[in-house]
Amino acid sequence: MYKLNKLFLALLFLFYSCINCAWAKNDPLLSWNEGSSKSAIIAFVQAVTDKSTPDYVRPGERIAVFDNDGTLWSEQPVYFQLYFAMDRVKELAADHPEWKHQQPFQAVLEGDMETLAASGKEGLIQLIMGTHAGMTSDGFTDIVKKWLQTAKHPTLKKPYTELVFKPMLELLDYLRKNDFKNYIVSGGGIEFMRPWSEEIYGIPPEQVVGSSIVTIFELHDGKPVLVREPKVNFIDDKAGKPVGINQHIGRRPIFAFGNSDGDLQMLQYTTLGATAKRFAGIVHHTDEIREFSYDRDSHIGRLDKALSEADSSGWTVVDMKKEWKVIYP
Amino acid sequence: MYKLNKLFLALLFLFYSCINCAWAKNDPLLSWNEGSSKSAIIAFVQAVTDKSTPDYVRPGERIAVFDNDGTLWSEQPVYFQLYFAMDRVKELAADHPEWKHQQPFQAVLEGDMETLAASGKEGLIQLIMGTHAGMTSDGFTDIVKKWLQTAKHPTLKKPYTELVFKPMLELLDYLRKNDFKNYIVSGGGIEFMRPWSEEIYGIPPEQVVGSSIVTIFELHDGKPVLVREPKVNFIDDKAGKPVGINQHIGRRPIFAFGNSDGDLQMLQYTTLGATAKRFAGIVHHTDEIREFSYDRDSHIGRLDKALSEADSSGWTVVDMKKEWKVIYP
Repeated sequence: MYKLNKLFLALLFLFYSCINCAWAKNDPLLSWNEGSSKSAIIAFVQAVTDKSTPDYVRPGERIAVFDNDGTLWSEQPVYFQLYFAMDRVKELAADHPEWKHQQPFQAVLEGDMETLAASGKEGLIQLIMGTHAGMTSDGFTDIVKKWLQTAKHPTLKKPYTELVFKPMLELLDYLRKNDFKNYIVSGGGIEFMRPWSEEIYGIPPEQVVGSSIVTIFELHDGKPVLVREPKVNFIDDKAGKPVGINQHIGRRPIFAFGNSDGDLQMLQYTTLGATAKRFAGIVHHTDEIREFSYDRDSHIGRLDKALSEADSSGWTVVDMKKEWKVIYP
Repeated sequence: MYKLNKLFLALLFLFYSCINCAWAKNDPLLSWNEGSSKSAIIAFVQAVTDKSTPDYVRPGERIAVFDNDGTLWSEQPVYFQLYFAMDRVKELAADHPEWKHQQPFQAVLEGDMETLAASGKEGLIQLIMGTHAGMTSDGFTDIVKKWLQTAKHPTLKKPYTELVFKPMLELLDYLRKNDFKNYIVSGGGIEFMRPWSEEIYGIPPEQVVGSSIVTIFELHDGKPVLVREPKVNFIDDKAGKPVGINQHIGRRPIFAFGNSDGDLQMLQYTTLGATAKRFAGIVHHTDEIREFSYDRDSHIGRLDKALSEADSSGWTVVDMKKEWKVIYP
């Protein structure tokens, strides 16, 4: 029996050594250059997962929230969901002859981006209502999935799901392996993101928070459906982000990543006044060659107030150009 | 090396046999009498977790939804959250001298349940707004926790958290062990349930769906808070339940349990028109000795339409009196 125990312990030891050696070789953030952002992320994760430190956070409380547009995938020259809406306008145009003389639909059909941009937030909402409502939730899911299979970014000439940031995919994976629960908290449509968030980001639909339109429960020929109505339900942006987080998660995150002023309140909500260790990061788009370069003056993804506040609040600003070895997978 | 492998396999075999023998002895639904409900539940869980059957459902899709009032804990003679509101009225009365002459507050202060009941849904909403708003979400959480520590049910003379149904706690546990994700989907307040749902039901805050009032993000002395406003945001009842499920979870449940007509649409949403195996259950309150007996004519938790539909839709109706060995833990 003594011999057997000894053998068993030897096997166990070999097993654990092997795990450790594999781990040491395995850099969890391979696409990140060594630097302040990478070391800040790793130091945070190590601190909150180490039971022997006062910074330890139990797995259930390890909530991480990520903006989507500009944080997990690109957002220039316009949000990808706007391209989806524009493609929908073209597809639905035959059933809507009135769109030929009705803005902002006319601008989309004529490829007149200037007039479209001038239609502002009001125009955008009209565009969303005209293209995102009137079907069931299941039907909308199918439309989004089908679109993603063939649609390509007009200037980058790649499928949208290939325009996600590889370093951020690694970060999501690293957090997940350390028992964090990753959430998307985006101004984009919740039902626009859910059909592909699990496959692309490993984030299941129940961990996606976003803007939404009103849905109504109905029975169609005895089959229960949710019908999408052309009416805003919730805008998950700016001060709406902490509201959406509280509504969906009911816990304050300990880790947040954004890239624009639309994320300011989410970063504040995560870090300000906290007595325990928290992390907030900002993706700073500084790479005009490999991606885009923009911040304080951009119409899409403007980063101004949040950039100014980063220093005093101890937020980590990621310089894409310097800190990311690659952008896309 | 051959000897070593053999020993290793022998150890492995012992280990698995031990797991199996422990499992066989362990009835997951000990408080349920043998009968149609218990066997229907077990048959369903075995089918969807068995990879060798066409009914198999992968863990991520194993979504189970539970009503709370009358399904996981008692709800008579009035919803427990109403007792909370009434206790709050008494506590706040000194700061609201006007309540002495203002219904429904006056009725609460005078213990006049008849007038309170007559104030109807409108009165209930006024009561909620007067007692559940004006503080931060964190502040409200503290109020609920503190109340639960000392409050007792006026007729049953027990703390409310002891008035949960033991057979349902076992069911939650059984599902969890089979990789289901359990959600509460209740007409009750989301922020009223979250402070205790994890401790009492093992259901974390992010898996609680409920009614809510509007919250506003603010910075108070540099500290981010969500302020609760006296304005309805969402009513998670009847046709609202599938809407709430879709909003929070984004997947259709495969398992649902309710007890009243407020759950009808949730049960329909889960089962009707489904091509795969689904389960819907109804707790039928038939035990006037150990709990309460009510259904078609009750003002609280009326079970009429859903009971009539149970038969044709193949829903499992649990007869509390006959099928549950014990009610409370």
